[in-house]
Amino acid sequence: MIVVIGGGPAGRIGAMRLAQAGKEVRLIEQRKIGGQCLHERCMTICALNDVARLVEYARTQKELGILDSVPSVSYPAIRKRICEVQEKLSSVLDAETRRAGVEVIYGAEGRLEGSRVFIGDEEVEADAVLAATGSRPAVPEIPGTDLPGVYTYRTLPAMPDLPRRMVVIGGGVVAAEFAHVYHAFGAEVEVVARHGLLRNLDPKVRAAALRDLAGIGIREQTAVTSIEGGARVRSVVLGDGEELEADAVLLATGLVPRSESLQGLEKGPDGRIIVDARMRTSAPGVYAAGDVIGPPYLTPAARREGVVAAENILGHDTVMDYTGIPWAISLRYDYAFTAAGADEGTVTLSAPAPAGPGSFWDVAGGWAGVAQIRVNPGTGQLVGAAAGVPGASALLSYLSYLVKRGITVDDFDDIVEVHPSTDGIYPLARYAAGMLRKKNE
Amino acid sequence: MIVVIGGGPAGRIGAMRLAQAGKEVRLIEQRKIGGQCLHERCMTICALNDVARLVEYARTQKELGILDSVPSVSYPAIRKRICEVQEKLSSVLDAETRRAGVEVIYGAEGRLEGSRVFIGDEEVEADAVLAATGSRPAVPEIPGTDLPGVYTYRTLPAMPDLPRRMVVIGGGVVAAEFAHVYHAFGAEVEVVARHGLLRNLDPKVRAAALRDLAGIGIREQTAVTSIEGGARVRSVVLGDGEELEADAVLLATGLVPRSESLQGLEKGPDGRIIVDARMRTSAPGVYAAGDVIGPPYLTPAARREGVVAAENILGHDTVMDYTGIPWAISLRYDYAFTAAGADEGTVTLSAPAPAGPGSFWDVAGGWAGVAQIRVNPGTGQLVGAAAGVPGASALLSYLSYLVKRGITVDDFDDIVEVHPSTDGIYPLARYAAGMLRKKNE
Repeated sequence: MIVVIGGGPAGRIGAMRLAQAGKEVRLIEQRKIGGQCLHERCMTICALNDVARLVEYARTQKELGILDSVPSVSYPAIRKRICEVQEKLSSVLDAETRRAGVEVIYGAEGRLEGSRVFIGDEEVEADAVLAATGSRPAVPEIPGTDLPGVYTYRTLPAMPDLPRRMVVIGGGVVAAEFAHVYHAFGAEVEVVARHGLLRNLDPKVRAAALRDLAGIGIREQTAVTSIEGGARVRSVVLGDGEELEADAVLLATGLVPRSESLQGLEKGPDGRIIVDARMRTSAPGVYAAGDVIGPPYLTPAARREGVVAAENILGHDTVMDYTGIPWAISLRYDYAFTAAGADEGTVTLSAPAPAGPGSFWDVAGGWAGVAQIRVNPGTGQLVGAAAGVPGASALLSYLSYLVKRGITVDDFDDIVEVHPSTDGIYPLARYAAGMLRKKNE
Repeated sequence: MIVVIGGGPAGRIGAMRLAQAGKEVRLIEQRKIGGQCLHERCMTICALNDVARLVEYARTQKELGILDSVPSVSYPAIRKRICEVQEKLSSVLDAETRRAGVEVIYGAEGRLEGSRVFIGDEEVEADAVLAATGSRPAVPEIPGTDLPGVYTYRTLPAMPDLPRRMVVIGGGVVAAEFAHVYHAFGAEVEVVARHGLLRNLDPKVRAAALRDLAGIGIREQTAVTSIEGGARVRSVVLGDGEELEADAVLLATGLVPRSESLQGLEKGPDGRIIVDARMRTSAPGVYAAGDVIGPPYLTPAARREGVVAAENILGHDTVMDYTGIPWAISLRYDYAFTAAGADEGTVTLSAPAPAGPGSFWDVAGGWAGVAQIRVNPGTGQLVGAAAGVPGASALLSYLSYLVKRGITVDDFDDIVEVHPSTDGIYPLARYAAGMLRKKNE
């Protein structure tokens, strides 16, 4: 029997792969299947953003005289409905997992002491273990984080209504995505980032993303000294003494691996379980995957790690490849990028993206997004791509694969797109191909 | 000097390719650059659908209590604003074309008499010609098509306001797309199709597409006998004698190549210019591309034909490849498919698509779209894919290329998607890979 601890993306997909190969698999999930991805992070943001985007697009079309009004958002209704849909999706995942042959046990805690496995207080015999206990939000060490009205993405579902003034603390994807959503809903939002906001984005793509955050107060290189309040939160005090009024504060200050129940395994200083490229931990027969092994904290990476662990448990020699994993953020548009291969000697080209579904009416305001490619001029190989357009995430999923596979700008002549499209990558690639042809003639 | 007749996708992209290679190129455009694609077809539908989808999504979210209202559409404002944006895009294309080195001449007619080239009444010397004069809407031979209130996609921009009752005649993409849009805007819409509606879609995907047309009257296998009216259109009379009241009628009954100005070239019975795979016509030095050479009447195919013609004019041996061109229709969701390779012995798998951006709130109603793959079980090769989800068009653009390149279901293990995603293809492909692995073990 194989025990899988944790029913998030890594554990669940790993368990299914094992069961499909004929193994007896027991999946232990303390709460609900689907993990934070379904219940608190990816799908919550998706749900909120589907409403936020509608409201923002309605504003644009109202300004153009096309629509007569902009609908108002009922936050309590969103909150209630998100839970309903998440329950529904959770039961779909439960059924799918069981159908694959996995035994799912809810409500118990799976624990490890080295290679010894416990379900609750009972020790069980296992041929192998996949530990996928996930992560939790990091809470900064400042006074006031325990005040009512201070949330992490984990406790945010308890926020009863839209705040009037929200302060978001953090500079990453989660900070930007939530700030965008609550601002679109009508809250006044301030983002306070210790370093920069979205600083891992290319400057041009970042500038595009910041357009979507217009109207949000952004303070970078700014520390938070304390969160103040009484019966509930009242303000956030910054390093320079400034006080930002707030009736809600969101801590979006990163993630911490959740490994307390996994003892006797080698860990990093932040608690992450140390694994090799085959997802093997320091304990024989014990594998780990997903957020509990540390960054990149992405669902698709977690899923793949779960599969890699399962494959190795099954005796196949499979290693995890982190190159070219696409990175994305969902604001009014998507901003996504991928890169694989060396940076030296490459040429970067950027251009406005073509108008297409989701961006047609933005052309009236002179903006339909941006596309960027990085090309090796010697080989014509595409070594990186980025886009800030509606649908950029889907685009970069496949582009990332093609970049990894060594696609050249000449190959784009063979890609027949569906028109109209917001994809600015293929015209850029074709342009680059022409440029290189000319240079070589 | 090379003369290009027509500034639509085929002519414009072909002209740019020639100019970039250093040729002197003169592009003759009677009206505006960008062709029907920009001014009447693709971009018009995109513009209308960006509004229609917003209104439909608002209805769903209103029903869930998330939004307090559904905005109303001002059709005259849409009409005016579409033209403004199209003008803007046209000037962008004009600038881009000139920047590539093409001389653009507006208002004149380019004519051919075999290899002899005329611009207006003046004969000009040309080393080669690319004829890309496009198409026009086919008008069925029934009485009443000239009544005020009867439109084609070409005259539709003149429709002053939203009709109360619209009859759409036709069974293809254009008929379905316009029917969907005007119904979303609040008109009562009836579609009358001589054969079937969207009958080239796979039955499962077609059934999904028809969900988006719920509330629209659909009559298939139905002929139209006449269109009746006086000062303006009043009704459409069907083959069985039934009379459908209408204050607007849209003829979406196909396209006819526009080749009257191109004399002395071999043509098909519908007027299409006959070309070989290198886009050569029967007259020496004369090439043709785009709608004027007949179906598929798709912008990306037209562009590619323009490039193929240009390449051959430049002395490179390039042939047009029509395999695996993705096909798509935009309703509330996109419905798109691609296929390359043989059908015999393949296995088809379909599944509900995962909920993601654009479909999250539809899960409340139990539907988030559909995905389908066709696999060769012997080789694991993906020979076809289809999806009916938000963003399916972008998805199928790249999938189509991968299918053409012979991607196998095993290769999908290497595709790291951006999550959440409406892409139901990769999970299906991974599922198929598991199935085949098991079968071969």
